Amino acid sequence: MDNDGSKLTKLSELGEFGLIDHLTKDLKLKNKSTVKGVGDDAAVIEPDPGKQMLVTKDLLVEGVHFDITYMPLKHLGYKAAVVNFSDIAAMNGTPKQMVAGIAVSSKYSVEALDEIYSGMKKACDLYGVDFVGGDTTSSVVGLFISITVIGEVEKEKITYRNGASPNDLICVSGDLGAAYIGLLILEREKKAFRANPDMQPELSGTDYLLERQLKPEPRFDIVRALDEKKIVPTSMIDISDGLASELMHLCKSSDTGCRVDEDKIPIDQAAFDKAKEFGIVPSVTALNGGEDYELLFTIRQADFEKVREIEDISIIGYMTEPNEGMNLVTHDNQMIKLEAQGWDALKKRNIDRELSNDK
Amino acid sequence: MDNDGSKLTKLSELGEFGLIDHLTKDLKLKNKSTVKGVGDDAAVIEPDPGKQMLVTKDLLVEGVHFDITYMPLKHLGYKAAVVNFSDIAAMNGTPKQMVAGIAVSSKYSVEALDEIYSGMKKACDLYGVDFVGGDTTSSVVGLFISITVIGEVEKEKITYRNGASPNDLICVSGDLGAAYIGLLILEREKKAFRANPDMQPELSGTDYLLERQLKPEPRFDIVRALDEKKIVPTSMIDISDGLASELMHLCKSSDTGCRVDEDKIPIDQAAFDKAKEFGIVPSVTALNGGEDYELLFTIRQADFEKVREIEDISIIGYMTEPNEGMNLVTHDNQMIKLEAQGWDALKKRNIDRELSNDK
Repeated sequence: MDNDGSKLTKLSELGEFGLIDHLTKDLKLKNKSTVKGVGDDAAVIEPDPGKQMLVTKDLLVEGVHFDITYMPLKHLGYKAAVVNFSDIAAMNGTPKQMVAGIAVSSKYSVEALDEIYSGMKKACDLYGVDFVGGDTTSSVVGLFISITVIGEVEKEKITYRNGASPNDLICVSGDLGAAYIGLLILEREKKAFRANPDMQPELSGTDYLLERQLKPEPRFDIVRALDEKKIVPTSMIDISDGLASELMHLCKSSDTGCRVDEDKIPIDQAAFDKAKEFGIVPSVTALNGGEDYELLFTIRQADFEKVREIEDISIIGYMTEPNEGMNLVTHDNQMIKLEAQGWDALKKRNIDRELSNDK
Repeated sequence: MDNDGSKLTKLSELGEFGLIDHLTKDLKLKNKSTVKGVGDDAAVIEPDPGKQMLVTKDLLVEGVHFDITYMPLKHLGYKAAVVNFSDIAAMNGTPKQMVAGIAVSSKYSVEALDEIYSGMKKACDLYGVDFVGGDTTSSVVGLFISITVIGEVEKEKITYRNGASPNDLICVSGDLGAAYIGLLILEREKKAFRANPDMQPELSGTDYLLERQLKPEPRFDIVRALDEKKIVPTSMIDISDGLASELMHLCKSSDTGCRVDEDKIPIDQAAFDKAKEFGIVPSVTALNGGEDYELLFTIRQADFEKVREIEDISIIGYMTEPNEGMNLVTHDNQMIKLEAQGWDALKKRNIDRELSNDK
């Protein structure tokens, strides 16, 4: 990962200004709304007339949001960027500019920062985003990545969380739960490696699950497909904390209840099988696992036929009157109350244990 | 500071969603360009036509940029916000929106976060900025604050670092070096307190110096005064790293050299006296101390009379041809090369020692 075997460069060898030059020297601007990128007190942006701008921010903390023992730094940089792009997708917009702040302890080398930056740049290139500024500094302990992304959306297409009405259909893109299963596999292999460093990791057949955890992709293909079908969702959010938590946000903001069919929640076969192996009910990984970065949205019933023509969208239920609350119709036709747990970093809970308790 | 004597609330008692609601419940929007603030996947902004937007970001790290043993948390929140506003001032703009990310370890209480937020809110209220989003999460160790500020500026008034020409006059607002002297006083009292906790701090007559360190103010009064006189600076930057470092940025970006008179560098009398007491050449605190958040800018010679009418601006020298380099004409009429050191957090240098070595 870090120039195997060759000498690594200490951050102090470049100094702050030298490091910023080094990290940002090859950034090229792609969007006409970006007037000035890196290199002044602020980046300068001039959005197209008729467009509104979206601003989102996420902070990723070592030991809380990621574990660098199994998260390659390039993937980390990539993921840090795309989870913010995903927030822009969730507003039905397109990401345009990004600023990043990184704090690293002295144990990190220039080459390690290069890896993080190369992941961020790759994400920006792939999604057409201009990397317009940053702040690189030291930390006493640990790695912190703070990213702010600015996006654009046509005024009439902006999709908030609060526009859903009772009877709107609840849709979700892709499949859910695999990112969490990927995390469980990585955690398991980490423990096994610590117990016996000579052991080979048991990762066969888990490519998709690991990729979902290590390299999530925001669903701009869905944003575009909806636009092509002239569907503006009534509400939308991306799934970072788990389906239950995101449903709660939509219901709370829109003042609705919801009814979701457990059987209709899309779960990848490999994730389903692995969940069973871990002794977890598969739908629980979708409801409470998080980090899928799929889009959860609601549409008017009138858009039902049009949405069915779009690949990779599942209709999992519908919105109800608020007094009905949030309900899950289980596999065996029981109706149970949905509780949003979310990925609650502040509670430092053992997500393993809690998921097991949920069964 | 934290509800003296009464019970403090653990972060885990509120949980992530509860904490965000608690911290953001009283945010009111002030700017017409702010369409939607906290509460969705992204904030929504619609700038006025003809305006360009400015985006700046700073990351503040406990133990690197601040020491909570003497930095009250409310001041910390305030300072974290205004240092970003200052970057917008340095582009000749006005700050409009702010997003903040905070990572705290479990040793912090809800009341501690309230203090940080109250400082950020106070800064936003005072400078007319909408607090439109945030991300609050946990850290394993330490407090991290990441702030992004969005501002606006009329297209023809935007001031970059790169517009200065030889013979342009170099101007600076306010006085320099006091913030660094304030830091030295706080560091000294911290050491004295550690050696003898019963000792009373020796802070008499240092109010101004401490305030410069703990509660800097961005110079929008200067931005407005320049606008009233119809002066658009040819280049501008704010002084966060020290005069020498900022001069280097302007000269490098504008492809000029500079000549600055040591005697014309504005230094407050209390800072001057205290510098002598610490055994530091006063002008060195201005050149290499940093954190003054004054504006350093250049104007055409034709604007000389107009700028002289503005209070609190000093003309300290002029730009030269690039091959002349950066020069300081000292008190005793020697010409010495200026070296930019800056507040180089990555080098973790002992600024005390280095400043002393500079004499």
